Amino acid sequence: MPTTTRIHNFSAGPAVLPLPVLQEAQRDLIALPDVGMSVMEISHRSKTFEDLLNRAIEDIRALADIPAHYKILMLQGGATLQFSMVPMNLLGAGASADYIDTGSWSDKAINEAKKVGKVNVAASTKADSYTRIPAQQELKLTAGAAYAHITTNNTIEGTEWKSPPDVGDAPLVADTSSDMFSGPIDVSRFGLIYAGAQKNLGPSGVTLVIVREDLLARSSDTLPIMLNYKVHAENNSLHNTPNTFGIYILGLTVKWLRSLGGLPAIARINQRKAGKMYAEIDRTGFYRGTAQQDSRSVMNVTFRVATEELEKLFVKESTAAGLDGLKGHRAVGGMRASIYNAFPEEGVDALVDFMREFERKRG
Amino acid sequence: MPTTTRIHNFSAGPAVLPLPVLQEAQRDLIALPDVGMSVMEISHRSKTFEDLLNRAIEDIRALADIPAHYKILMLQGGATLQFSMVPMNLLGAGASADYIDTGSWSDKAINEAKKVGKVNVAASTKADSYTRIPAQQELKLTAGAAYAHITTNNTIEGTEWKSPPDVGDAPLVADTSSDMFSGPIDVSRFGLIYAGAQKNLGPSGVTLVIVREDLLARSSDTLPIMLNYKVHAENNSLHNTPNTFGIYILGLTVKWLRSLGGLPAIARINQRKAGKMYAEIDRTGFYRGTAQQDSRSVMNVTFRVATEELEKLFVKESTAAGLDGLKGHRAVGGMRASIYNAFPEEGVDALVDFMREFERKRG
Repeated sequence: MPTTTRIHNFSAGPAVLPLPVLQEAQRDLIALPDVGMSVMEISHRSKTFEDLLNRAIEDIRALADIPAHYKILMLQGGATLQFSMVPMNLLGAGASADYIDTGSWSDKAINEAKKVGKVNVAASTKADSYTRIPAQQELKLTAGAAYAHITTNNTIEGTEWKSPPDVGDAPLVADTSSDMFSGPIDVSRFGLIYAGAQKNLGPSGVTLVIVREDLLARSSDTLPIMLNYKVHAENNSLHNTPNTFGIYILGLTVKWLRSLGGLPAIARINQRKAGKMYAEIDRTGFYRGTAQQDSRSVMNVTFRVATEELEKLFVKESTAAGLDGLKGHRAVGGMRASIYNAFPEEGVDALVDFMREFERKRG
Repeated sequence: MPTTTRIHNFSAGPAVLPLPVLQEAQRDLIALPDVGMSVMEISHRSKTFEDLLNRAIEDIRALADIPAHYKILMLQGGATLQFSMVPMNLLGAGASADYIDTGSWSDKAINEAKKVGKVNVAASTKADSYTRIPAQQELKLTAGAAYAHITTNNTIEGTEWKSPPDVGDAPLVADTSSDMFSGPIDVSRFGLIYAGAQKNLGPSGVTLVIVREDLLARSSDTLPIMLNYKVHAENNSLHNTPNTFGIYILGLTVKWLRSLGGLPAIARINQRKAGKMYAEIDRTGFYRGTAQQDSRSVMNVTFRVATEELEKLFVKESTAAGLDGLKGHRAVGGMRASIYNAFPEEGVDALVDFMREFERKRG
């Protein structure tokens, strides 16, 4: 008998997936209808798989209204490999790239870029413990930069850009791993967007890359072939065997996102979920949000209580109550509720109820 | 209702998986027992996932009797990314590496290595259309080579090394993507072994790497962090989020391989399957094996008939008979039956029956 009892999963990633996606995958795991093989067993060169890949790409294009001059790629290695691929492909000899440092993941991206070429940190909120996003006037951009890089949502610190900064003529490159398709995104403002799938888009092991076609001309033939965007674009992500199962689940997840009514509808749901969390955090002062108000993330809600002892108790008791994964990242401490696209609103309601009861007992 | 009608899948990869593995994965896809989340939804930092990863590693170590001074890694990017990672990590400035060219995949490995450093092609059977493996005395090895690289089984050409060559003091590096764990392997003869999982070990999107610990000292800190073996070894393949579902399926597959009785037992099964195929090919001369007899692969059986027209008919009629994926690679033509570890013997019997009947009707 299949196991079906599920708990509320606040994990920062890999994270909760839509139940209808898991149910369809379970139904067809032994054999795709009319194919007679598991999706894990079919050749990536088969018509079945190519159709599945192309349908996922078309659904992504439709969901985010992505212009035709952007290529949509499905790669491997997570955002961390993109930290290297971006400068290896886009940062030519002698050029420099602007990076805006808003958290631990921005910092890792900067470290990898520095191995490849010249990096200018155009702004950093590290001195404020990454509790906020810098204002436009704080950015010290370089004229003629090869590109400018941001992290749209900071998973660990619980902050997000409310809108992308103006970086002039430099192509804007964004790590959107933790807020991709959580609301409308104007792709035309970006040169390249990347996201590990395992928070908002599917399972781990697939990386979505959306790249403006003209930037592919920068990819040198001397690059390792698997790290060359142009090669992947020319081969529709099939230069070598991709993560076929991961792409299948990502495709089902994007189809599910479309069924919610598109990105504005998804944004309304996510705003409502986050709104409930922040309202509870702000209600009495027993809880304290760690991010500054105007930088608060809709995806990762970080908060603390008066003492670390009480925080340990919170995590222990919430876990026992079927609310899993609320321990905050060690860099910030306290608690973190990751409430991505697929996280159900009743899970937020259950957490808010738990928070009220915890405050009543311990406040 | 789940779909369960399955056909015989001779695909070269992604390829057939053991039915008990698919059944267990299907049963638990919505929620792992006592966890309440899908394996795709659990944090890679959770005890559940770390246990699952470590169990897979222990099963691999036990299955192939891998000495303690070898690290077992689960990476992403397939063998193609290894074509670059191997020289980036192991081929120091000024040094050169020996490559033995036995097929299309060796050739690709050589092309990527040449982007990184100096390569000596120590032998090539390209002039013989890669129909054979070179003899020991043909190898022109370089004294003091950083390493020597072979492809143990040539998926496209249907040839295999019957035993690894003697390469002197150079660490032997092997791409074993298409014959890993198909029989006993003396890991101590190798410096590094890699294999994309999607033929013998699991789904696509996971790459198994087995590396002798002393070689990790060659990995420079200036490498992109995701391409650094030392970083992956120090972090037990958890520097970033791995392909968690792929590792889970690989773990179940290795457990299944162990249940067959270990590598000698698996070799007997594979030899018997391949023996039936080659006996049929050699029976009358209607079929013609493309590989030279002493180089024939146990995993990928390549064969032709008199005309391309007849070959098209063979592929068409076999597909209609539920024998899928028999069209040969365009580089060789004809037919190819990939009969990896998980390919059931009754599928070989069904193909042999089909071949006899095809010969009777068309011979």
